[in-house]
Amino acid sequence: MTNHTPASKPESERKDRQLTGRTARRRVVRVTVSSGGLPGGAAARADLLATEEPLGIRVDGTALTMTMRTPGDDVELAAGFLVGEAMVRSHDDIAEIRLCDGTSCGHSDHDGMGNIADVLLAPGAEVRSGARRNFMTTSACGVCGKTSIEDICVLPAASLESDKTQFSPSVLVSLPDRLRQGQRVFARTGGLHAAGLFTSSGELIVIREDVGRHNAVDKLVGYALLRGQLPLAGCALLVSGRASFELVQKAVLAGIPLLAAVSAPSSLAADLAEEAGLTLAGFLRGPSMNVYTRTHRIPA
Amino acid sequence: MTNHTPASKPESERKDRQLTGRTARRRVVRVTVSSGGLPGGAAARADLLATEEPLGIRVDGTALTMTMRTPGDDVELAAGFLVGEAMVRSHDDIAEIRLCDGTSCGHSDHDGMGNIADVLLAPGAEVRSGARRNFMTTSACGVCGKTSIEDICVLPAASLESDKTQFSPSVLVSLPDRLRQGQRVFARTGGLHAAGLFTSSGELIVIREDVGRHNAVDKLVGYALLRGQLPLAGCALLVSGRASFELVQKAVLAGIPLLAAVSAPSSLAADLAEEAGLTLAGFLRGPSMNVYTRTHRIPA
Repeated sequence: MTNHTPASKPESERKDRQLTGRTARRRVVRVTVSSGGLPGGAAARADLLATEEPLGIRVDGTALTMTMRTPGDDVELAAGFLVGEAMVRSHDDIAEIRLCDGTSCGHSDHDGMGNIADVLLAPGAEVRSGARRNFMTTSACGVCGKTSIEDICVLPAASLESDKTQFSPSVLVSLPDRLRQGQRVFARTGGLHAAGLFTSSGELIVIREDVGRHNAVDKLVGYALLRGQLPLAGCALLVSGRASFELVQKAVLAGIPLLAAVSAPSSLAADLAEEAGLTLAGFLRGPSMNVYTRTHRIPA
Repeated sequence: MTNHTPASKPESERKDRQLTGRTARRRVVRVTVSSGGLPGGAAARADLLATEEPLGIRVDGTALTMTMRTPGDDVELAAGFLVGEAMVRSHDDIAEIRLCDGTSCGHSDHDGMGNIADVLLAPGAEVRSGARRNFMTTSACGVCGKTSIEDICVLPAASLESDKTQFSPSVLVSLPDRLRQGQRVFARTGGLHAAGLFTSSGELIVIREDVGRHNAVDKLVGYALLRGQLPLAGCALLVSGRASFELVQKAVLAGIPLLAAVSAPSSLAADLAEEAGLTLAGFLRGPSMNVYTRTHRIPA
């Protein structure tokens, strides 16, 4: 595919871009209540906040979605989003992703925000139906809407069952520290979710940060898609927060056999993981973790 | 309005409902790596997870959205969602909200999940345009999509400027502990977001929990709407996580003059708060907080 943005440059060349536009300076008043004998008060200073701006995603000219995200890696975000929607499966499905960041369009008079990512699918690319089935029209009972996992998402044809990779517990417990060390924007703002992709031996492949945890995962999956690395067999995905149904769905569609979260999973995250053959770990903190599904991949 | 659910019962009568269906038991293997001289190992046990299931919301028979939420307070969730979309402003705008929870429809053979909330608007109710303007069609530049706050949301006609309520810093710093104490499902699962509504003197009005932080706020706003309490002048809203653009928008549309978050706000959250006249506080931890906008409501 043709790629009009620097997303295909090596990581090393992109360091200067990493923080550009991802943080914004705002005035803040720090208010402290007197406690423990210390006086209270208020002091104004400048503070860095994580940037949040809208990104619109169009596919073949049709508006698909708008997401509030932290700018940067927007081509990856658009590509990864389409994987999570089960619309594309390899970089061959995408002819081009054009991104206008407010400078390349020749309009220099904008003082607003927001971008559009225009995705052109490859001619003849077989586009799959969306991952999010329409719960409201497919629910088993038209009256009460009782449904099942099959009604709300599309699982890939190839199950994760065949991925026999094993992950050492001692490697897994080391990943949260490594994720935190790689969170460059979080270190400056305290306000971003992160997702990290690792090999089974704990080697870091890529980290992405965003105000939305789903966006962080989309960027990471898009990174891999644009390099022809899907499905991500043998890899582990670590997320900084909780594991929702949506994150499990994204991991499954990217072919990742293990999803680990620093915090708790939801019931539906565990149920979908079980059904799809994904190993789901939660509360990955200190020397321990809870493994909810497919424990055979984490031999104690 | 007519209300077919127990949502209008006093809080005290609803205690038994609070945890029904909100947690789900799943098998978990606790894996511990040997460290500090302590042996590692694996042990299976039962664990409670926060329930996540889809809720469809229909308005006058038309599908509006589907959200993944923790079951419970679904009528409030539907009502509050419509406030956050700027579609309704008072309980007079809603004729009825019917909720099918899988038992009232007479179909007892479902073993699935998910509900539908059917909202009927009041005859003659003036329905406002959605809060989320279509960024992709209204963006100032058709090529690059540069936009502004006005392009992506609708602010209420009555500004929050006129709300002269002041909030004592010593009261505000006491709220996170009180929110945590009220998080009954979190205490069991470690996996839920919470939103709490307080008076300016720190009296708790209502707490709601959900796997989605926006849902927790929708439930809380819906609770107030169904009791005819909107706009929530003079109140403070506390959220357990970060403050995004979306949460600020929901607070503004509910007429709440102060939003406090335990964690960081985004740049756009601060920008919208400033524009709408909302006081936005973040990092509300221990004896301190950061105040990003309209600091006059928090006299040090």
